[in-house]
Amino acid sequence: MAAPAEGSLRRFSLAIDAMGGDHAPDSVLDGLELAAERHPQAQFLLFGDEARLRDALARRPRAAKICVLRHAPDAIPGDMKPTQALRQGRKSSMRMAIDAVASGEASGVVSAGNTGALMALAKIVIKTMPEISRPALAAIAPSLRGDVVMLDLGANVQCDARNLVEFTIMGDAFARAVLGLPSPTIGLLNVGSEELKGDDRVREAAEVLRGHAGLNFHGFVEGHDISAGTVDVVVTDGFTGNVALKTGEGVYKLMRELLKQVFTSSIPARMGYLLARPALERLREWMDPRRYNGAILLGLNGVVVKSHGGTDATGFAHAVDVAMDMVTHGFTQTIRESLSQLAAASSPVAIPPIVAQQD
Amino acid sequence: MAAPAEGSLRRFSLAIDAMGGDHAPDSVLDGLELAAERHPQAQFLLFGDEARLRDALARRPRAAKICVLRHAPDAIPGDMKPTQALRQGRKSSMRMAIDAVASGEASGVVSAGNTGALMALAKIVIKTMPEISRPALAAIAPSLRGDVVMLDLGANVQCDARNLVEFTIMGDAFARAVLGLPSPTIGLLNVGSEELKGDDRVREAAEVLRGHAGLNFHGFVEGHDISAGTVDVVVTDGFTGNVALKTGEGVYKLMRELLKQVFTSSIPARMGYLLARPALERLREWMDPRRYNGAILLGLNGVVVKSHGGTDATGFAHAVDVAMDMVTHGFTQTIRESLSQLAAASSPVAIPPIVAQQD
Repeated sequence: MAAPAEGSLRRFSLAIDAMGGDHAPDSVLDGLELAAERHPQAQFLLFGDEARLRDALARRPRAAKICVLRHAPDAIPGDMKPTQALRQGRKSSMRMAIDAVASGEASGVVSAGNTGALMALAKIVIKTMPEISRPALAAIAPSLRGDVVMLDLGANVQCDARNLVEFTIMGDAFARAVLGLPSPTIGLLNVGSEELKGDDRVREAAEVLRGHAGLNFHGFVEGHDISAGTVDVVVTDGFTGNVALKTGEGVYKLMRELLKQVFTSSIPARMGYLLARPALERLREWMDPRRYNGAILLGLNGVVVKSHGGTDATGFAHAVDVAMDMVTHGFTQTIRESLSQLAAASSPVAIPPIVAQQD
Repeated sequence: MAAPAEGSLRRFSLAIDAMGGDHAPDSVLDGLELAAERHPQAQFLLFGDEARLRDALARRPRAAKICVLRHAPDAIPGDMKPTQALRQGRKSSMRMAIDAVASGEASGVVSAGNTGALMALAKIVIKTMPEISRPALAAIAPSLRGDVVMLDLGANVQCDARNLVEFTIMGDAFARAVLGLPSPTIGLLNVGSEELKGDDRVREAAEVLRGHAGLNFHGFVEGHDISAGTVDVVVTDGFTGNVALKTGEGVYKLMRELLKQVFTSSIPARMGYLLARPALERLREWMDPRRYNGAILLGLNGVVVKSHGGTDATGFAHAVDVAMDMVTHGFTQTIRESLSQLAAASSPVAIPPIVAQQD
């Protein structure tokens, strides 16, 4: 059962898993309280323990205004394996929120719960688009030249050339819909920028991409190009993407820690911090990982956004922003159109056929 | 022809490719001028254009004291393909410096030239140790808990489980010899720390490593563990390692650029910078990429160090430090001993046999 396109037919903009994440449901509801200010026209369908959520919503009047409660007796624990979640999670808040997208009641779902379970359930229930062989996890990262879209971040640890080509098409559609770029530049992550670098997989994918007139394909990029903002979209396999994202986050944390040591190392340094504080605060806000919270599972018949499990209200509200952006820009429809345009475009190298999808 | 072990038999500590790198030979000779202060007992065999080097050495009395010149009529350009370098580069400064290690005249070689050519020439001329199927490129990176060894950084873009096991053994020996750690902790880079994460390749390698009593194997680590210093040695394939290293460097550059903007954003911020300057300078020195210059090709019958092509005298001198550390600690011998100990150790999972090496 494929979900219908986003639009006026759906009663709810988003289905929310209220029980997912380290501090659920409080962090989720606090996040919705913030989201309600930014999206006063939205309608959220909230899944979780009804009694608990009713009390919690009573203390959050803005969130209460845009949320409709629906009882889900179970919750999926953070350490449950995806296969187990598929078998045992039918009455869980996560599964029921995903069901609401599949049934057409909501256009998208946001959860801060178990990533593996969310990816598996979303694939099985909402289903992959017929043109796509494997969905990919994408996120937005900061760079010297503005926001950069990165994918895949771990949905597929092993990828072939075809997967990389599909990720590119999805990343392109995402950058157009969510970042508002008319013709985003796209780079394929590699160990060097020369055409002969890398393994067969990336070279084959690059050959296909060079032949597509509809894409603004820049060619190969290297690890340092992510933060440099050399391209708007960085495409790679899920293993490399996951490691690159976390390595970058690690260096940012290291720098933050070392700067803290610098500014507490002497009395003049402390005074220096106080003088530069407004500008340093702006830098911290701009680099704030919460501002980049919300990884998107691309390639499904509906919008699926994963919030970081440990985030707070600010972070969760950002994940809701990302999902609302995708829903209001008819993102799923944009990807479909891109896929059919690319299929129709003349191309010197055909995209290899994919295995038929069950629907 | 395998080179003899390091030691008193060799006349020269290091053979130096004076013509490799963006600013050669000046940056190389300025680097040697610095290195001469730190290693006054060393003897370097310097390869390159004799007339040019003689004049250049005349202006650098300390370097002149520890260097012996040898004429090399050619130099390998930065964009020459490895296969071409193998065929045409016989009289190049890089090749002749490598030849000096193979013949036993020098214990190691340092070059800031073409990386692909250096790796190919070193493998063919100095040869891989019989116990190792593929050499790996390693480097030292900063972390919250001190220096971390990372490998492979791009010598092998495609790796199997056996390669990862060998990289681990070489990384362990390197951390003991160069960082002076008696029992370095080792992590295998993956998309999660749980045993079931990742692809077959990393899971198989982890199973072998868990069975080795001689290694302090920590298990899987993630991207953010590199800068956190969770382990002393981070092992991965050449594709992921190359991307991770460059991604980390990119985020460091981004932060440096943003901090520059912060400290020039207002008059109080400028004053703040001046007050915190000594501590900020210490941070910059500590994170200085030149301090981490010198990637090491591990697994050969001799010490091979690649300096960054764009580095200056300070960076080149650091690459010489790394090579001198390896030479004086009898690094090649340490790896040999580790390999035979591991082969002799009882292990529940045998290392799969390797294809016999040509020697």
